[in-house]
Amino acid sequence: MVEASTQVRADLDRLLPLVEPLFTEALQEGEAKRVAEAMRYSLAAGGKRVRPVLCMLAAEAIGSKPERARSCAIALEFIHTYSLIHDDLPAMDDDDLRRGKPTCHIAFGEGQAILAGDGLLTEAFQILATDSNLSPEACVEAVRILSEAAGWRGMVGGQSLDLEGEALTSSGGTYDLEHLKRIHRLKTGALLRVSLELGAIAGSASPLQRGALREAGAALGLAFQIQDDILDATSTAEQMGKRVGKDEGKGKITYPLLLGLEGARLALTEATSTALTHIQSLPNPRSLTAWAHYLAERTA
Amino acid sequence: MVEASTQVRADLDRLLPLVEPLFTEALQEGEAKRVAEAMRYSLAAGGKRVRPVLCMLAAEAIGSKPERARSCAIALEFIHTYSLIHDDLPAMDDDDLRRGKPTCHIAFGEGQAILAGDGLLTEAFQILATDSNLSPEACVEAVRILSEAAGWRGMVGGQSLDLEGEALTSSGGTYDLEHLKRIHRLKTGALLRVSLELGAIAGSASPLQRGALREAGAALGLAFQIQDDILDATSTAEQMGKRVGKDEGKGKITYPLLLGLEGARLALTEATSTALTHIQSLPNPRSLTAWAHYLAERTA
Repeated sequence: MVEASTQVRADLDRLLPLVEPLFTEALQEGEAKRVAEAMRYSLAAGGKRVRPVLCMLAAEAIGSKPERARSCAIALEFIHTYSLIHDDLPAMDDDDLRRGKPTCHIAFGEGQAILAGDGLLTEAFQILATDSNLSPEACVEAVRILSEAAGWRGMVGGQSLDLEGEALTSSGGTYDLEHLKRIHRLKTGALLRVSLELGAIAGSASPLQRGALREAGAALGLAFQIQDDILDATSTAEQMGKRVGKDEGKGKITYPLLLGLEGARLALTEATSTALTHIQSLPNPRSLTAWAHYLAERTA
Repeated sequence: MVEASTQVRADLDRLLPLVEPLFTEALQEGEAKRVAEAMRYSLAAGGKRVRPVLCMLAAEAIGSKPERARSCAIALEFIHTYSLIHDDLPAMDDDDLRRGKPTCHIAFGEGQAILAGDGLLTEAFQILATDSNLSPEACVEAVRILSEAAGWRGMVGGQSLDLEGEALTSSGGTYDLEHLKRIHRLKTGALLRVSLELGAIAGSASPLQRGALREAGAALGLAFQIQDDILDATSTAEQMGKRVGKDEGKGKITYPLLLGLEGARLALTEATSTALTHIQSLPNPRSLTAWAHYLAERTA
């Protein structure tokens, strides 16, 4: 974890206890012990919990309580974790280290890892549908926007485009900034965007507030991905807890590659600034403001 | 397709046009063309459409219209199709032929096939959440029981136990009838069971009717799996459109292996009889009755 501002540390101290127990203690009672163990292994591997925290902060930013967004926050982390498990598979990014630990398929075998991802994705909707604090209308809306953002029109679609792009570049081809933006808008951006929008739904936002949180989320998603690319190009493996420089090693198209390191940093600043404009329109913008700065300045 | 009774053929003629167009014409407009193509490829590969048909017949059996259960029916087939794509992967059952066509990973590569499965699973919940014919309460209930049946407490869990069982038997171990029943109750039974229960929810069943459809679905699920095992042991590849005898070749535990062929046939008759008892308690049992017989007597 990076040096974070006092506000960010205070938010983590307040908010993580609302969701962390679910990541380590859930999924205990089923008959299929092995796949549940693989699901818990990957959930417990930690990471920054950016999506659940942003979701709860979005609810707070409109004057609601973070607890209202708890099931949405947990569902987001389940879906994020499933996407990491599947992305790490040999047929995808083929990574054997994640957050400093063996990836799920290294620890449990490829078959159980595929199933653990499937199980986490499915369970995310179970979590939403069994939250008695959400009205039926809010629950349906949450399922709708989460399944859209996570599916073939969102994250899954982005990963598919990314795989195609890798096949293209490894055979000597290339693609432009517009296509790179499309990949990231879908692959990483869609889930970060709905992280804030789900907080809006759970917190009963007005249409204007929901729109502001959606736009802020889209901009934060872009900023997050640009910073990821910058970090991959400039960090050490020890800082990141995973292989770095792998983008370049794979001939992967990145923001620093297309814009240069300074150009990428400028794009990061612009995206963060867009996010901040929308965040400032909300009744209670303090924490989200601190997080927008933190995400742009993080070193891991 | 097998020789089916007049009733079953009439039901297919009535009901398939309600859902088939979605399997071949959906998923056209996204930015990620390749994964959408892989999803459509597997959806269009056909198969018996047992789950969507049973779902719509369950709504009819309680006096509702099959159209009411249309989105539930489509969601079920999306989830069934995703499970076939992932089950066929090299890390799972490693099949290269399905319904007489190359499996998804053979046609599109392993990475895109994993994503196509992920996309279909996610889209199932999108389909439920965007059906304006379902009340919010019915939609939440449908998401809840479908995610439970499809996830680690159901189908995913059963597939995980099955993988573990294969590892056990391939190293010379074995397991008993109780464990085989558990695997099938989860792996195949759970989704067939909720096929009928989703029809109950969509058709606004009384609690008693819903209970009867749930029990009928559980029994039909068991019957379906026993017949699958019997067919694998006795059919030709031409009849089945996929490799047969593969269970025995892999040392897989099956009903015929544990009970003998006659014992398995007796268990099939018993399960079908249980299903019929529950079906007969409903206001409009004719079609489901014909289907219970058809599923037990099918030859593919």
